[in-house]
Amino acid sequence: MSNKLVYYFGGDKAEGRAEMKNLLGGKGANLAEMTNIGLPVPPGFTITTEVCIYFMEKNTYPSELQECVKQAMARIETIMNAKFGDIENPLLVSVRSGARASMPGMMDTILNLGLNDITIKGLIARTNNSRFAYDSYRRFVQMYGDVVLGVRPKSDKEIDPFEAAIEAVKHKRGVKLDVELTADDLKELVAAFKNIIAERSPVKFPEDPWEQLWGAIGAVFNSWMNDRAIAYRKLNNIPETWGTAVNVQAMVFGNMGDTSGTGVAFTRNPATGAHEFYGEYLTNAQGEDVVAGIRTPKPIRELAQEMPPVFKQLDQVRLTLDKHFRDMQDFEFTIQHSKLWMLQTRNGKRTGLAAIRIAVEMVDEGLITPQIALTRVQPEQLNQLLRPVFDQKEKSKAIAEKKLLTKGLNAGPGAATGHIVFNARAAELAKERGEDVILVRIETSPEDIKGMNAAVGILTARGGMTSHAALVARQMGKVCVAGCGALEIDYNAAAMKVGEKILEEGDYISIDGTTGEVLEGAIKTLPSEIIQALIDKTLDPAQSEIYPIYAKLMAWADAERRLKVRTNADQPDQCRMACAFGAEGIGLCRTEHMFFGGERIIAVREMILANTAEERQKALDKLLPMQREDFLGIFRVMDGLPVTIRTLDPPLHEFLPHSDADIAKVACEMGLPGEQVKTKVAALHEANPMLGHRGCRLGIVYPEITAMQARAIIEAAVQAVREGVRVYPEIMIPLVGFKNELAAQAKVVREVADAVIKQAGVKLDYSIGTMIELPRAAVVANQIAEEAEFFSFGTNDLTQTALGISRDDSKGFIPFYIEHNIIEDEPFQTIDQAGVGKLMEWGVSLGRQTRPSLKVGICGEHGGEPRSVVFCHRIGLDYVSCSPFRVPIARLAAAQAVLMEK
Amino acid sequence: MSNKLVYYFGGDKAEGRAEMKNLLGGKGANLAEMTNIGLPVPPGFTITTEVCIYFMEKNTYPSELQECVKQAMARIETIMNAKFGDIENPLLVSVRSGARASMPGMMDTILNLGLNDITIKGLIARTNNSRFAYDSYRRFVQMYGDVVLGVRPKSDKEIDPFEAAIEAVKHKRGVKLDVELTADDLKELVAAFKNIIAERSPVKFPEDPWEQLWGAIGAVFNSWMNDRAIAYRKLNNIPETWGTAVNVQAMVFGNMGDTSGTGVAFTRNPATGAHEFYGEYLTNAQGEDVVAGIRTPKPIRELAQEMPPVFKQLDQVRLTLDKHFRDMQDFEFTIQHSKLWMLQTRNGKRTGLAAIRIAVEMVDEGLITPQIALTRVQPEQLNQLLRPVFDQKEKSKAIAEKKLLTKGLNAGPGAATGHIVFNARAAELAKERGEDVILVRIETSPEDIKGMNAAVGILTARGGMTSHAALVARQMGKVCVAGCGALEIDYNAAAMKVGEKILEEGDYISIDGTTGEVLEGAIKTLPSEIIQALIDKTLDPAQSEIYPIYAKLMAWADAERRLKVRTNADQPDQCRMACAFGAEGIGLCRTEHMFFGGERIIAVREMILANTAEERQKALDKLLPMQREDFLGIFRVMDGLPVTIRTLDPPLHEFLPHSDADIAKVACEMGLPGEQVKTKVAALHEANPMLGHRGCRLGIVYPEITAMQARAIIEAAVQAVREGVRVYPEIMIPLVGFKNELAAQAKVVREVADAVIKQAGVKLDYSIGTMIELPRAAVVANQIAEEAEFFSFGTNDLTQTALGISRDDSKGFIPFYIEHNIIEDEPFQTIDQAGVGKLMEWGVSLGRQTRPSLKVGICGEHGGEPRSVVFCHRIGLDYVSCSPFRVPIARLAAAQAVLMEK
Repeated sequence: MSNKLVYYFGGDKAEGRAEMKNLLGGKGANLAEMTNIGLPVPPGFTITTEVCIYFMEKNTYPSELQECVKQAMARIETIMNAKFGDIENPLLVSVRSGARASMPGMMDTILNLGLNDITIKGLIARTNNSRFAYDSYRRFVQMYGDVVLGVRPKSDKEIDPFEAAIEAVKHKRGVKLDVELTADDLKELVAAFKNIIAERSPVKFPEDPWEQLWGAIGAVFNSWMNDRAIAYRKLNNIPETWGTAVNVQAMVFGNMGDTSGTGVAFTRNPATGAHEFYGEYLTNAQGEDVVAGIRTPKPIRELAQEMPPVFKQLDQVRLTLDKHFRDMQDFEFTIQHSKLWMLQTRNGKRTGLAAIRIAVEMVDEGLITPQIALTRVQPEQLNQLLRPVFDQKEKSKAIAEKKLLTKGLNAGPGAATGHIVFNARAAELAKERGEDVILVRIETSPEDIKGMNAAVGILTARGGMTSHAALVARQMGKVCVAGCGALEIDYNAAAMKVGEKILEEGDYISIDGTTGEVLEGAIKTLPSEIIQALIDKTLDPAQSEIYPIYAKLMAWADAERRLKVRTNADQPDQCRMACAFGAEGIGLCRTEHMFFGGERIIAVREMILANTAEERQKALDKLLPMQREDFLGIFRVMDGLPVTIRTLDPPLHEFLPHSDADIAKVACEMGLPGEQVKTKVAALHEANPMLGHRGCRLGIVYPEITAMQARAIIEAAVQAVREGVRVYPEIMIPLVGFKNELAAQAKVVREVADAVIKQAGVKLDYSIGTMIELPRAAVVANQIAEEAEFFSFGTNDLTQTALGISRDDSKGFIPFYIEHNIIEDEPFQTIDQAGVGKLMEWGVSLGRQTRPSLKVGICGEHGGEPRSVVFCHRIGLDYVSCSPFRVPIARLAAAQAVLMEK
Repeated sequence: MSNKLVYYFGGDKAEGRAEMKNLLGGKGANLAEMTNIGLPVPPGFTITTEVCIYFMEKNTYPSELQECVKQAMARIETIMNAKFGDIENPLLVSVRSGARASMPGMMDTILNLGLNDITIKGLIARTNNSRFAYDSYRRFVQMYGDVVLGVRPKSDKEIDPFEAAIEAVKHKRGVKLDVELTADDLKELVAAFKNIIAERSPVKFPEDPWEQLWGAIGAVFNSWMNDRAIAYRKLNNIPETWGTAVNVQAMVFGNMGDTSGTGVAFTRNPATGAHEFYGEYLTNAQGEDVVAGIRTPKPIRELAQEMPPVFKQLDQVRLTLDKHFRDMQDFEFTIQHSKLWMLQTRNGKRTGLAAIRIAVEMVDEGLITPQIALTRVQPEQLNQLLRPVFDQKEKSKAIAEKKLLTKGLNAGPGAATGHIVFNARAAELAKERGEDVILVRIETSPEDIKGMNAAVGILTARGGMTSHAALVARQMGKVCVAGCGALEIDYNAAAMKVGEKILEEGDYISIDGTTGEVLEGAIKTLPSEIIQALIDKTLDPAQSEIYPIYAKLMAWADAERRLKVRTNADQPDQCRMACAFGAEGIGLCRTEHMFFGGERIIAVREMILANTAEERQKALDKLLPMQREDFLGIFRVMDGLPVTIRTLDPPLHEFLPHSDADIAKVACEMGLPGEQVKTKVAALHEANPMLGHRGCRLGIVYPEITAMQARAIIEAAVQAVREGVRVYPEIMIPLVGFKNELAAQAKVVREVADAVIKQAGVKLDYSIGTMIELPRAAVVANQIAEEAEFFSFGTNDLTQTALGISRDDSKGFIPFYIEHNIIEDEPFQTIDQAGVGKLMEWGVSLGRQTRPSLKVGICGEHGGEPRSVVFCHRIGLDYVSCSPFRVPIARLAAAQAVLMEK
């Protein structure tokens, strides 16, 4: 390899910079940056991500690596005035992963590396603290055994063998806490740990520090490909090809007694976004103790009492970091004999609420531009603002009824109610059954990620605000209450005890992630503040904390974006809600949804069961006034905005009963012989309804249906015009594959529409366009555009046909494909850009070849998915259309699409 | 319009030429050509097809047309020394259609135009034959009433009103034949006909000859768009935009007594292709009498007795035409007072057998090149050579049992057995039900075309070898026996009588179109001579009349074509047959067909119902030896040729029972609880199986299935190699949409295959490729070609997905679409070139971008359809693959594709 493999940092100079995250990983780049801006960072070096990629491909290191590491170690030795493996003043190091994107807890870390039966003597001599030295040593052996040599519990039920050994010693000594163990106890543990390793691993614990170092580096690189890391990457769309860097850094010690300690803090509150010092620490502990959630740490404010000068310095560091990085930082520190050392900083994970608040407030503080603020929020995070909250009255009532079980840390805001489950797998299974569950764990670990994702809320007994549970929940946007010490959880009994109360798996529980309250039973929820303010008008926006922030961000997004955002809606109240969320028109009004009401379905069935065109017309005549009323209601709400109405799409058999009992009932209702209905149902049965007699194929064979719908639309529009409403109806013909199909339907529509308009004598423009939802339509879009005044991509059907995958039938293989890396993304969630996307690009470009002014949009469900929105922007669509609740998401994604181009 | 509108011909000079068919239509161009080569043609002129197109678009004529027609009429008057509308020597003309392609009987014709109550006097005076004159007049009025004024029977059951009037007069006179009517009778009929017109038409019969002429010209142009013509064009792929020309020509008369006559003849035998004079004529008749089939005409050889000099001249004309046009001609002539007039010549319609024989023999005679011979045969006509013939023994036995009903004209060779139907609609309905029927009619007319197409054979009571039934049957390649005078058909009773025997609708009947025999009951058939000679080896090729001609044509085709032709087959005997037909490999061996045998289906079901991978493996182990034997048998037959084997494709539920009763039976057979089978069937149920868990999606989720199949293929190949067979297995993965799907399956195959080959220690090459049958696969073909060594287009599924049409469910709209001109062709019959074809072009070009040597073929059913074969050639495929019986068709089409390029 020709590139530089190792980047050194230390003293007040570093070879790397914050911008070099791709090469050095986030941790390495930021350690370099902190060194450069004068913060106290223990010296060290970073092995680049390119070495990781090389290692994954070739299963060996570049030949120069050994020499580079040696030289960098020598520089650390110089600064630390210590020597690796030295009996008198041994240098100890940590070895940590650090990828381009933060993956907390996913990969492995080794601390206190360099200790052995010789160097331990030097450490004791230098610190004059043999208890500390042996504590470090036993921690190192334990970690090395676990991470490098793979000594782990063999099942969920087995206790960690190292922890078991500790418990045994504590029991022998009659003590309860780790800190009560003596140096001799710890020395005994070191020996016991080495025995455990010798028994359970093919390799003994290595005494040679260099062998230790290379073992640790290899383990960290390998941890990039462990199951947890792979699952995490999948969930977070992180490419495998990024690789991780490895950071080797001189050890500093938070476990050197009561003037030492370690902690994790944020420059702002990661749950709410408030600009306040937020963090926690443990006295006389190493960093792992904080993150692992085994001991519940103290809030950072207590440090102001315990070590006032250190607190003051730390608060200063916090403000420096926040300003320097212009983003909320999540940083780790260690205090060694009252001296502060910075071990890491990175952009902090935050809830959706916090993300938005921090982004907006940093603009107000002049730290970032609105454009940057827009890129700081993941569009999906807006969902969290729209999530229900508990109805305060109901909650108060529950509390009065003594339903409040306990209170924990408010680690993930929001309200969640569900059945209790005690393990991740149960949560996944429940999700598949469509049940809401709260995952309750003593503490969570990376193995629980899928289950956490499946649960509506997470509740833990141990761990603080920066514990695994809290971190992951915030990132996933899950409701979470952490560190409820009062919970006694018994996995074997599948039950938990709070005081005298026992709750079992399956019982209802409610958790409030905003307050930390845990309540028995299900509690009623209310819409979010945004919805109360915007739509229900039950909350004065000025009284809302959240609404003004949301409104500011949305205004910035609207100023940037070029794509219009419409909504898919077919009821006036849905339209009203969508407009409140910023919809600029209706992109898809499905007329078939209107066909299911009581009286209507009977008329629809009469139409289907008609034996003659006359009978059919009679049934259609009954439907006409109902459809007209539907459209009129929508036009009134959408005053001034375009409304795209699609003619009947589903196959007729969808409107008929299928079971013998239902057939008999319908026949009876309609006064027809059961056999007649049964015969019709059988005649309409299709082997592949998705590819059957539906869409425009219905309207072509039964033009009277299209004519009725066109009449209803245009008569409603005429009425609306008379009421002073500005109406822009766009009539959309579905499932067109051939130009002549559209021509035939357009002729039917125009004949009716022009006659109605002429008779009414009003001025009314309408346009006729088509869905592009078949591969053929995309391929011959130049021909279709001769007839179409607009295109709207139906990416659900286009995906089904282009990929030959029935969405309903894909459960047997699509999840398997994703799990086994056959495909990266679920194609019904985000547009398959290489395949479906290519067809869309051709469709747009061929269509505009024929008709340069062609308006093109998308109305498939992808229209509200951020990556798909960005793609739609890139290929030049005019608008996306999505469900009302996704309109804000699409607005933000559309703005981000513009910013990505820059 | 700036172009010449009217082309004159007459004397020995014509303005047109044979090459001007597009402009003058076939009839007009050939009338000009015959004039130019000195044959006796009555003078006339042709109004061009461009005028027709102008007329269709604008519903009026170009302004200059009237003057041009006037001038041309003047030239005819000069040559004929007669005057249009003159009382003394009136010129009479015929007005006939004439399109670029012959459309016999589809459009309208008017004869004797120019007669009225004044000119009739001149005609009587000039001919001194008032009977002839009034016969001409009554024919003209009748024809004009029918064609121009639309006076026709109002239903199928009503007798033609003009014919009814004739019958009434005959009855009154007590005579049986038309010729027995006197001049006065005919004069009475003229008046009667004019009354019929006045009663039934809004317009009276016009007396003004010019009004007659323009009426007739308009009627002929309009007849281009009548239902029959539209149906005929659809059946024969003739574009509407070609239009028809109109030929106006001086009348000559075959009905001027016994030295006059008219006839239709061929330069060679249109049924067998033999180089002999073949035709028929009627004395004292006009041409329509021959074609309409109302009177059964005499064979041409009788003319040699009746009018020896005319026969000699006519035979000379026949040889001149055959040589000059270098193709078999179908010509019309009239003899007026022993003078021969040529009225038309055109390339004669012929049976497939005749087409091949004439083409091959003309090469032997030095008239045409083999290349031209190849273009003279429509590939589908080869089907006729492969059609079964009656088993002579069985037929003799039937005759011995007095089953021979009667004998007619052998108008369309071949053997057909089916139920009797008496009308076209019944034939169509029977076809939809999948029944074979013989359409029995007194005579056929253009209205019967759809029914004729639906029937397996046609039997008529009236009409000769050039009657409508005979012409159309030959063209369609239908078995036909015409002019069986012994049949008494009663449409109302839906029965026919032959002698004493009465047969009713639905009774079985057998007709031999090669001998003209009509037999009661169903008679066993034998394979065609080609199959007897090539495959069954029951016939010495030298003893066959047909085989040597077929072999010559195929050899010429093979010399021209570039496309290879493979076959779709999965049984050794199918392979043998395909090889005899010239297949150069197997393009698609479907492995699932092998899964249905008794023992096998049980093992397959065990595999599907397995609960563990172990159980599944056990079931697969049972299938392995059976599959191996299958492949070995195929490899042995295909020695030296490539064999493409597709891994399992259909969804697993296709192998399971579905009804409750079948489920119970299978469960019992397998010793499983019924509920377990039922649950599995329910679990595997799919909403859209076409787009479900099938193709490579099966092999990816259950790699052990693919592994078993790969093992069976390679173990069989190894065994074959050991036997000295040259084996080229190509393993084909179905339904690939993503490169990684193919990569995953290729890995499974390679692991097994390489291990088997290594262990066997033999030399064996195999390749791995994929079907391109999803739009996405075509779009990302460059990616897929990274893994694929060959592509094979599965155009059945590609059509279903690209068009979003389930073939099984398309009956509700595809026929409607074709009927209503929404689409031109059934896309599952011939490749949709604009849509599916475009995807194929992209697939080929993208695939070869990545892998220039990529072998690309097609194995959908389109691979044996001539137009699709030509398309496949054009886009650069290496081979087409089709069912064994279509291999010769594909070979010929592939040769034609090369010739088309030149």
